[in-house]
Amino acid sequence: MMEIALAQLNYHIGNLEYNAEKIIKKIKSAEKLGADLVVFSELSVCGYPPADLLEFDNFIIRCKEKVEYIASHCNKIHAIVGAPSFNPEIKGKRLLNSAFVLHDGKIVSSYSKGLLPDYDIFDEYRYFQPADSFETIKISNKEIALTICEDLWNINERPLYVSSPMDKLVMQNPELIINISASPFALGHIKNRKKVMAGNAANYGLPLINVNQVGANTELLFDGGSLCVSSDGEIINELQYFEEDFAVIDLAEINKQDKPVSNTNLEKPSLLYNALTMGVKDFFNKQGFKKAIVGLSGGLDSALVLVIAANALGAENVWAILMPGPYSSKHSVDDAKELAENLNTPYDIIPITDTYNTLLKTLEHKFINTSFGTAEENLQARARAIILMGLSNKFGYMLLNTSNKSESAVGYSTLYGDMCGGLSVIGDVYKTDIYELANYINKKGIIIPENTINKPPSAELRPNQKDSDSLPEYEELDKILKLYIEEKIGKSEIISRGFRSKTVEKVLSLVNYSEHKRYQTPPVLRVSKKAFGYGRKMPIVAKY
Amino acid sequence: MMEIALAQLNYHIGNLEYNAEKIIKKIKSAEKLGADLVVFSELSVCGYPPADLLEFDNFIIRCKEKVEYIASHCNKIHAIVGAPSFNPEIKGKRLLNSAFVLHDGKIVSSYSKGLLPDYDIFDEYRYFQPADSFETIKISNKEIALTICEDLWNINERPLYVSSPMDKLVMQNPELIINISASPFALGHIKNRKKVMAGNAANYGLPLINVNQVGANTELLFDGGSLCVSSDGEIINELQYFEEDFAVIDLAEINKQDKPVSNTNLEKPSLLYNALTMGVKDFFNKQGFKKAIVGLSGGLDSALVLVIAANALGAENVWAILMPGPYSSKHSVDDAKELAENLNTPYDIIPITDTYNTLLKTLEHKFINTSFGTAEENLQARARAIILMGLSNKFGYMLLNTSNKSESAVGYSTLYGDMCGGLSVIGDVYKTDIYELANYINKKGIIIPENTINKPPSAELRPNQKDSDSLPEYEELDKILKLYIEEKIGKSEIISRGFRSKTVEKVLSLVNYSEHKRYQTPPVLRVSKKAFGYGRKMPIVAKY
Repeated sequence: MMEIALAQLNYHIGNLEYNAEKIIKKIKSAEKLGADLVVFSELSVCGYPPADLLEFDNFIIRCKEKVEYIASHCNKIHAIVGAPSFNPEIKGKRLLNSAFVLHDGKIVSSYSKGLLPDYDIFDEYRYFQPADSFETIKISNKEIALTICEDLWNINERPLYVSSPMDKLVMQNPELIINISASPFALGHIKNRKKVMAGNAANYGLPLINVNQVGANTELLFDGGSLCVSSDGEIINELQYFEEDFAVIDLAEINKQDKPVSNTNLEKPSLLYNALTMGVKDFFNKQGFKKAIVGLSGGLDSALVLVIAANALGAENVWAILMPGPYSSKHSVDDAKELAENLNTPYDIIPITDTYNTLLKTLEHKFINTSFGTAEENLQARARAIILMGLSNKFGYMLLNTSNKSESAVGYSTLYGDMCGGLSVIGDVYKTDIYELANYINKKGIIIPENTINKPPSAELRPNQKDSDSLPEYEELDKILKLYIEEKIGKSEIISRGFRSKTVEKVLSLVNYSEHKRYQTPPVLRVSKKAFGYGRKMPIVAKY
Repeated sequence: MMEIALAQLNYHIGNLEYNAEKIIKKIKSAEKLGADLVVFSELSVCGYPPADLLEFDNFIIRCKEKVEYIASHCNKIHAIVGAPSFNPEIKGKRLLNSAFVLHDGKIVSSYSKGLLPDYDIFDEYRYFQPADSFETIKISNKEIALTICEDLWNINERPLYVSSPMDKLVMQNPELIINISASPFALGHIKNRKKVMAGNAANYGLPLINVNQVGANTELLFDGGSLCVSSDGEIINELQYFEEDFAVIDLAEINKQDKPVSNTNLEKPSLLYNALTMGVKDFFNKQGFKKAIVGLSGGLDSALVLVIAANALGAENVWAILMPGPYSSKHSVDDAKELAENLNTPYDIIPITDTYNTLLKTLEHKFINTSFGTAEENLQARARAIILMGLSNKFGYMLLNTSNKSESAVGYSTLYGDMCGGLSVIGDVYKTDIYELANYINKKGIIIPENTINKPPSAELRPNQKDSDSLPEYEELDKILKLYIEEKIGKSEIISRGFRSKTVEKVLSLVNYSEHKRYQTPPVLRVSKKAFGYGRKMPIVAKY
């Protein structure tokens, strides 16, 4: 008999003291519950991703000390924690991405990761040498194949790596696979992850335990959802999504167990709402902020951000600022007020008209004999930003950015204007998904005014402006954007799929042209497999 | 006898037509001069770094077609060009970083890179599989060890890679090493590069030719400086720095030749001035911009940016805007005017006072009973930014950012204020080096007013403000910053080197706290081995 505890926790990057105490507490809980082993996630001691903190020798030394400190609290029980370590070989990268087995007050064995993800938001080869020898570990007389995250993901028809650690580990006759991971959320990824874990279990004919971290680290959202899989590839147990969780399972029971799996709603709008809420909440917590400020236009994007922020931080901690300008319609202020009142968030109305007029006057002798254009539109968007940032600086509220992915993709936004903010909440959500989210939120009763949802989208920076004046309809736009950004399909192939060539050419050239603007945007909560930010690196000075 | 042409060119990323025509032209020149072989740099067909353009299948196919097209123009002579190619193996990354030998109208052989840099600004493992078998190539009856950039850099006492391609190639008895590279500039790197190339030549006892690219690709500055090295490790020929160059050398002569090597001035201020000038010039060229706008404060940083911009784009294409505010000193406007007049750049004076006062009035009912602070200071900096961006948008001038590395490091700057701009010109230059650069510029006659250089640095956002009110003296600050940022040395070790612990703690916590601000800064021309930007990835939500 072997009782194994899965500890799915939210770590704070670099905060070794905090992480260590959290881990020790769960070791004690597991011990009390009679577990033989408690498993924590990949790089749990330092949090994932630690990024260039790994380049400081002192950081690696302190991580090692913390592992030893944790070990000193781990006597009867075994624990598996993740931490970086120095590569003992003279040749190769300086570090290894390691897992340590703790027992009897000390480190009793270790394993290092063989497959290092280096694509999209991953860059582990920047820091780590891939391990090339793999040994099972022995805990309570059981041989265990201990692996780290990507080690189990060499799965495509065209595998990304030339060999798999499991193929070597399986020769040593393990009875169980334990995989510690730091696997971030993206739409579609939960299904994918379950399939891969189930596939590994079935393929090797071994029960499998996967422990993931949870919580948001700036743009990366870790959804948890740790898994127990039977040796025939059935998901037996599934921990909570988007929150910390802890479970003790009996290894002997894995193959017969019929526990109810997680009842988390895995539909798209629900996932998006929970993921974004966790993203905002954790960003504020980890940055030491409590209060957010949002420019509320009366349109759908800022409405959605306000709802998510209120959900994450409490309505009383979110300040809505309504800033009508010369081209704002009457309904914009009314719709915005209605939303703030529905949510019970404090709000203020601060018109931009005086600021905008003063700017026009200041620039009059230069702008003379020119006609109204982008410059004047941008002055309005920037007047709003300067007011929001003034309030943010004065009262310590963090400004939330309200751009969606569709407009950010085509650059339909003003740099240093509506592109401002400490965090982009919906910058990875396409406009068509924004509507889905809004309807989901309103399901149990109207929160977002119907007029906000139903009116044609507009920036209201010139008379009677509509998004559709300069952009294709969002239905079509989003389809083209997904093919280009997420599927990485080029112009001619997109056109061959039935889109008008003029539209495709326009959209793609807008996306390419806007790289320089997106370079300066706030971090974007990542909910798709290809978000703007450091997971997508497109050259600025380029022609293609 | 073998005549080899070195073609050191400036490529445009993704602009395959442009690059191909440029390459073909040089093949023709080399042929005319009787060369047997002409060598181009790493990934010359697509430009380096192509970044995620590599993820588009269509891009790789088009690169291949271009290589074949170039080959069709290459008959009697041989040419070596660089391009990405599909990895023919079923396992491993999708691509190889390849060099193609062209002759007789077709591709006659190829070589793929074995050592893939993945640190600082490099991320080649994101895209490429490292080659693991290496064959010499035969050209005009000579065995040649053809390598690509990093292949020759496995050189430290603790080498970064477990094996070196040259150790295998040398077994095949080559008579010459040809290394094609894309090696970016950084202070100290030219010396380093020469040492490494000379070391390889001497170590393997072979003459060596290294062909680098030149030109700026957003933040990355490629300095050229292609080299011929004799088999005893003497630099025989050195191409120009910071400009295109072309030379034909006789292989038989390499070991006896006594050609004058490049007479480029390799002193720090000269290198910085030339590197930054090229960086601005090429960014504008490649982005299709001609004109720059600079907010000229009367202080040294903006003065220096104006001088560099005028040098890069022509004085008539740089527009200086003087924007005195309520706390600007009289000399600020005078000093700024004097500089603009010395340089002959157009300038305008546009005070921010009305805008600032209107903003204060707009926010009055909220700011009431608070005291003057950061919020008010930032309003001034942002009023300047909104005016500059208004002019930029109206007249198509690109705004240049004027922050230096020291203030950017400690966050002594206003987001969406003086942190605005399409390109940060001196964001990788420490304040102490700014002084060196200014003196270098003034060597042949005063261009930057002496008062601008000599007065104590101030943001002039509150009465009698000085940088030294809130920061240590720049001499001390820069030393601490270099240890932390470039040497990656932690707090306790910096203190142990003789700095006051209170100062070190303050500086380091300012650097860490400012990550979220730097996330949103424009691309920074990289002149050090660790610049802010995508070569330095520090987590935002972290505690360390």
